[in-house]
Amino acid sequence: MAVNQITATALVQQLGGELRGDDVLITNITSLQQAQLNDISFLSNPRLRHEAQTSRAGVLIVSEKSADILSGRTLIVTDDPYLYFARVARLFHPRQLSQAGIHPTASIAPSAQIATSCEIGAHVVIGERTIIKDNTRILAGTVIEEDCIVGQDCLIHANVTIYLGCQLGDRVELHSGCVIGADGFGLAWDKQNNQWFKIPQTGSVILGNDVEIGANTTIDRGAIENTIIEDDAKIDNQVMIGHNGKIGAHVAIVACTGIAGSTEVGAHSVIGGAAMIGGHLTIPPKTTIGAATAVSHSIKESGHYASIFPLQKHNDWVKNAVHIRHLHEMNQKIKELEQQLAQLTSHLSNPQD
Amino acid sequence: MAVNQITATALVQQLGGELRGDDVLITNITSLQQAQLNDISFLSNPRLRHEAQTSRAGVLIVSEKSADILSGRTLIVTDDPYLYFARVARLFHPRQLSQAGIHPTASIAPSAQIATSCEIGAHVVIGERTIIKDNTRILAGTVIEEDCIVGQDCLIHANVTIYLGCQLGDRVELHSGCVIGADGFGLAWDKQNNQWFKIPQTGSVILGNDVEIGANTTIDRGAIENTIIEDDAKIDNQVMIGHNGKIGAHVAIVACTGIAGSTEVGAHSVIGGAAMIGGHLTIPPKTTIGAATAVSHSIKESGHYASIFPLQKHNDWVKNAVHIRHLHEMNQKIKELEQQLAQLTSHLSNPQD
Amino acid sequence: MAVNQITATALVQQLGGELRGDDVLITNITSLQQAQLNDISFLSNPRLRHEAQTSRAGVLIVSEKSADILSGRTLIVTDDPYLYFARVARLFHPRQLSQAGIHPTASIAPSAQIATSCEIGAHVVIGERTIIKDNTRILAGTVIEEDCIVGQDCLIHANVTIYLGCQLGDRVELHSGCVIGADGFGLAWDKQNNQWFKIPQTGSVILGNDVEIGANTTIDRGAIENTIIEDDAKIDNQVMIGHNGKIGAHVAIVACTGIAGSTEVGAHSVIGGAAMIGGHLTIPPKTTIGAATAVSHSIKESGHYASIFPLQKHNDWVKNAVHIRHLHEMNQKIKELEQQLAQLTSHLSNPQD
Repeated sequence: MAVNQITATALVQQLGGELRGDDVLITNITSLQQAQLNDISFLSNPRLRHEAQTSRAGVLIVSEKSADILSGRTLIVTDDPYLYFARVARLFHPRQLSQAGIHPTASIAPSAQIATSCEIGAHVVIGERTIIKDNTRILAGTVIEEDCIVGQDCLIHANVTIYLGCQLGDRVELHSGCVIGADGFGLAWDKQNNQWFKIPQTGSVILGNDVEIGANTTIDRGAIENTIIEDDAKIDNQVMIGHNGKIGAHVAIVACTGIAGSTEVGAHSVIGGAAMIGGHLTIPPKTTIGAATAVSHSIKESGHYASIFPLQKHNDWVKNAVHIRHLHEMNQKIKELEQQLAQLTSHLSNPQD
Repeated sequence: MAVNQITATALVQQLGGELRGDDVLITNITSLQQAQLNDISFLSNPRLRHEAQTSRAGVLIVSEKSADILSGRTLIVTDDPYLYFARVARLFHPRQLSQAGIHPTASIAPSAQIATSCEIGAHVVIGERTIIKDNTRILAGTVIEEDCIVGQDCLIHANVTIYLGCQLGDRVELHSGCVIGADGFGLAWDKQNNQWFKIPQTGSVILGNDVEIGANTTIDRGAIENTIIEDDAKIDNQVMIGHNGKIGAHVAIVACTGIAGSTEVGAHSVIGGAAMIGGHLTIPPKTTIGAATAVSHSIKESGHYASIFPLQKHNDWVKNAVHIRHLHEMNQKIKELEQQLAQLTSHLSNPQD
Repeated sequence: MAVNQITATALVQQLGGELRGDDVLITNITSLQQAQLNDISFLSNPRLRHEAQTSRAGVLIVSEKSADILSGRTLIVTDDPYLYFARVARLFHPRQLSQAGIHPTASIAPSAQIATSCEIGAHVVIGERTIIKDNTRILAGTVIEEDCIVGQDCLIHANVTIYLGCQLGDRVELHSGCVIGADGFGLAWDKQNNQWFKIPQTGSVILGNDVEIGANTTIDRGAIENTIIEDDAKIDNQVMIGHNGKIGAHVAIVACTGIAGSTEVGAHSVIGGAAMIGGHLTIPPKTTIGAATAVSHSIKESGHYASIFPLQKHNDWVKNAVHIRHLHEMNQKIKELEQQLAQLTSHLSNPQD
């Protein structure tokens, strides 16, 4: 059940943190700019301190070090205001529960096993022998092919496609348009017949518990072994994971990132957005790959990596970029200058040489 | 009604421009190369002048400055041949009108309000309390969840998904596979439980009038406030707009571009394709961001920006790119050379120093 | 029919190659690491030789030059082990045949012509006058609009969208979420009305025989002429092909690549992934464009091209990237140093000058 209103006192009893200032009845959670007297908001980014000071929010979630500049206000002081805000938002906006039942327009194969607590939307298609566990919601238009397993408490949004034989853990959320288990891009050139021969993609996709996959993201099935996304990995929209990829637990991959086949991303890494990681590479745990960064070799040491070409006005870019093509020559010239200058200097100090 | 044929004289009466040469009956609009005697074509790119001269087109739409080299031909002279061509093409190929009616396989929630002039295709799903206004066409397989508003004269192509609570203005066109209103990528790290905590995405998406969204593009709902796409913004295929983004009026975003959360793109800007714009940035109005350009900081002055790494043969790239990693040292060496040379020169002019 | 087991002798009789060592009954095909005594595996990448030596696979497909280090094992020696492996995998995992019939929930326009050997899945929608030829399979939720032609032996996966008037050859495979024939991004700015005027996209998309298109890939229809994908072109996931593009026969385009409008890619080229090719360009046959490479001008000579900004630790990137913006000045300084040094040297050799 969603909370409609709660006092600051009751909130602190429920979620922890220290209440300072007068109690306030909270009826909504919103941004610093939009907040009114019965709203709660939060200050997590120090650059927004001024906005916090001028915010009309009745209650502010803040860290100890920001509390001083907000004295006289009703504050909830906590180690991690952003996480606290998330918990309050979840109180006001809980995940929708399954409305158990199968829509009459859904097309369910006879041998599929669907828990009675599941919600199956209009025009959903479930293939033979597929198993859907307790309380999972599958929204309209989604197709789950044969021999899949979908765990409990999952939320599969509208118009998702899951190819045959894929497995999802519990509490997985898949956003609309994502495609799980399409064929990996495997081709062998057939010289004799002068055409491509398609490598059958006989692996599958395994998604762990608490995985979230964004809209229009694609995760290809393995060529022989499986593509694996481990527990609590979070993948944004329009990400592409190639066949046999292995994405470690708690990895976050920001939108528009592509990861080619057979690459392993270590646990707790953060990738992208719009990053490009080549195939057959290893990224160690706790690595950060910056936005728009191309990774074409394995990384040995975890850390923060980047490779963006710096932005310029187009005219300046034209002037500068041309020299990229001649950096090798430029470097040679510097070496030659150094040598010539060294010879000259040496000659001048020992003119008899 | 589509026009099947029209004389050049009648065309000029309807759309303006100045007719020169003999009247011609026009039965089709096509390219310079393909055009035949009863076809109309256009010359807008000056590099195609020669193709215009050799084209068999019965009528050519041209600007005054190209008219001279085409004397003796039937010409329609106008300030903007490309726009004129577009208008003629629209005459021959008007937008299809709504064929009012709801397909018997569509699944419409009881409380949805759909104007009787709307066309609702096969297997379309419309959620509770959603409003669809006059003459809007919704093609097969599209899912529009609850509490949405879709304006009049919209065209929602097949297999589109619109999440709950989104609002579309009038004359909006959404192409297949696009996803409007999926959750933004909002995560707080929960140290205590060693896992991600999902930030509820409680905002929505607001699309203004005359917005067009390309195939498989995704526009995420806001975290707290709304994601807003203003009037007449045109967004190509496979574009990603993150939560809380604000895309100004008349902005054109070319395919494969990603714009991270909370970024504002000023009106009349042109972005991409395949550009990447970071989060929480501001792009001023009338800015052009080149193809494949990464923008990682706000832009203060409007203009044309770029950041492409210049293309080379792979072997040359290998030779040159390695020096990118040592530009700082290269720059240091140049400074040292300058100092040494200055000292030497100074020493030679004043050997007693 | 799928093969469940086959002896090495029988395999060589069927597919060629030379058998060395004892005959083995093969029941599965898998990777070097996972293989057991009744499995067949292959060695194609020389870097995996050690893994081949330690693999428990009962049969190894190898080239002559790797055969020596594996003496005593059962080997199938062949020119191209990767292709041979693909053929064996196909034996064990043949393409699923059409299960002729139209699902009762499919919505087929009265004038559509569907061969009786076709398999049409649940909630599929087929438009007026569309033709589907022999043995083609169309999986659940796919929408094929009016006036399309789909060749024989095609496999159209679930939730695909094909706009009106598109044509597919024989043996075409389209993966889920791909969109064929959405409007190209054609806009003319209408000064008078201060808004964009949409250029009607009146061309279509033509896919040749044996074309494969990946999940969530989009191929736009032509503005006037058609967008053409020639025979045996293979396109991975999340690729974008703009209007009027022409992709030559046997081209392979890796995931996340964008190719802007009116660009021609010559036969047998390999592009990307995550490459970006501008509009109105020509790429000659047999060209390789590296991953994450931006192509902003036509290429005259076929070869291997690249343009990645090299990866660095973020701190090093910060130090180095700043100099990119000043390469022109850096180059000027080198020129000046050269001149000064030349003058100095010349002055020292002829002090009277």
